[in-house]
Amino acid sequence: MSSRPEPESIAIIGLGLIGGSIARGLRADNYRGRLVGCVTTSDHAERACALGLVDAAVTDPADAVRGASLVVVAVPVGAMAAVLADIAPALAPDAVVTDVGSTKLSVIADAKAALGAGIGRFVPGHPIAGTEHSGIDAGFATLYRDRRVILTPTPETDADALATVETLWQRLGGRVSEMDPAHHDEVLAATSHLPHVLAFALVDTLARMAERTEIFDYAAGGFADFTRIASSDPQLWSDIVTANASAVLPVLERYIGDLEALRGAIAAGDKEPLEASFGRAKHARDRFTQSRNGTSE
Amino acid sequence: MSSRPEPESIAIIGLGLIGGSIARGLRADNYRGRLVGCVTTSDHAERACALGLVDAAVTDPADAVRGASLVVVAVPVGAMAAVLADIAPALAPDAVVTDVGSTKLSVIADAKAALGAGIGRFVPGHPIAGTEHSGIDAGFATLYRDRRVILTPTPETDADALATVETLWQRLGGRVSEMDPAHHDEVLAATSHLPHVLAFALVDTLARMAERTEIFDYAAGGFADFTRIASSDPQLWSDIVTANASAVLPVLERYIGDLEALRGAIAAGDKEPLEASFGRAKHARDRFTQSRNGTSE
Repeated sequence: MSSRPEPESIAIIGLGLIGGSIARGLRADNYRGRLVGCVTTSDHAERACALGLVDAAVTDPADAVRGASLVVVAVPVGAMAAVLADIAPALAPDAVVTDVGSTKLSVIADAKAALGAGIGRFVPGHPIAGTEHSGIDAGFATLYRDRRVILTPTPETDADALATVETLWQRLGGRVSEMDPAHHDEVLAATSHLPHVLAFALVDTLARMAERTEIFDYAAGGFADFTRIASSDPQLWSDIVTANASAVLPVLERYIGDLEALRGAIAAGDKEPLEASFGRAKHARDRFTQSRNGTSE
Repeated sequence: MSSRPEPESIAIIGLGLIGGSIARGLRADNYRGRLVGCVTTSDHAERACALGLVDAAVTDPADAVRGASLVVVAVPVGAMAAVLADIAPALAPDAVVTDVGSTKLSVIADAKAALGAGIGRFVPGHPIAGTEHSGIDAGFATLYRDRRVILTPTPETDADALATVETLWQRLGGRVSEMDPAHHDEVLAATSHLPHVLAFALVDTLARMAERTEIFDYAAGGFADFTRIASSDPQLWSDIVTANASAVLPVLERYIGDLEALRGAIAAGDKEPLEASFGRAKHARDRFTQSRNGTSE
């Protein structure tokens, strides 16, 4: 696919769903270089080695990146600043660093603070892939196959570093595109961050109602689908929505306003605005499904 | 499963997803009586016969029920009053009538108005099953297998009529239970009606944003699951939420209040209440999944 030589050594900081799937995907693609993983506990280091995810697993990010030609920081957005600060002094001068964070402006600010003049070797990235599961056992080699991967280079980003990261994602099966970081944050606020807030909020609202056990007993498949993302990691998502508050808040406020209008129509028994809104939604959702699958679901 | 003799003739008013699946399920269970369907157009009547759903398809509800020992009214909640009024004069004196509406107090009121003294032979029912699809081609014989079916008899309901309807659902594979009608409406407002409003509202909010095409381009699997129910029938659902307004409004208002609190926390950068809410939601959702599947998803 590319004639670029593969990186001699790759360090992955964090072997959860995202980082663990990168490691598994590289193994499945017969990556021949050295693969080093960094995890938070010695138990996880043992597990990573037992699963064959990496050649070596360490618990100190600086140890992990020493000598690595490519570093993938696959930690929650809320941990990004601390990890980048930890690894900065240990990075090889020509090492390329990338991340997988769900927000890009916040991570770019963290990277500038940590890497200083080395910011040109940092490539902000975000694979649009995941499940509601997390942890070292959650990953799988095909997570990124045919999934979009958005890279959000800044004016400082080296073209060579960008190409290295693009090649990494292509070998994992990703469909790489570039986007302005601020625009990325707005788009993801709408399609990912807001839906997570809404799903968490719904399940929490219902769970705090008196009849909660029985309520869930009578929930059907539609409810299971609608609330699947409410099984995601709570800390990860509270970090994401606060890191991207400036993009999440306007769309959340617009949504609450739209919901208030629907509430008013329901209270008034006025079906016309309900049918209009539900009809526009069905039309948009059916088109989304068709463009996604090439067919209706 | 039961020694009750099967009804000599069953009329199903409406052969969409719900009614069509009842017809298909009865066929699959080798129902030997006469099966008559009522649809809205002669095209649909032709299609119903071509699909082998029924022995005869008509477009007049009164024609359909003449001579039937069991009548299943499988029309949208908003059409229930008119259909019950249409069939009332044509019903055999001992005919059992049941419905499949997603709201029960409104249908019981419609049935009392239409059937008068015959209300004892009316058994309010609601199969908790469905997909986001609708129409005569949407049904399938196994839709009700292992699904909950809630019957909400009133003090007037004949025990014999109740047993007939219970047997119908059991032969389709349903898990039948009884519930107070008002309580049914509260439980379904929380687990079904509110989620539909939220999903429709989200897709409509996003569809009306300027960048909408691109927004949907970058949506991932979580978004597809979250918005699946927004592909449901708009008129059907605006009928349901207005028919059940008294139960939908309190839980919708509670939800908007909870969302406002989360919005405040995001605006303040206060992660603690976000993590607490998201954590409670994940806990409840994981328990729901375990009790549903006997395992985690």
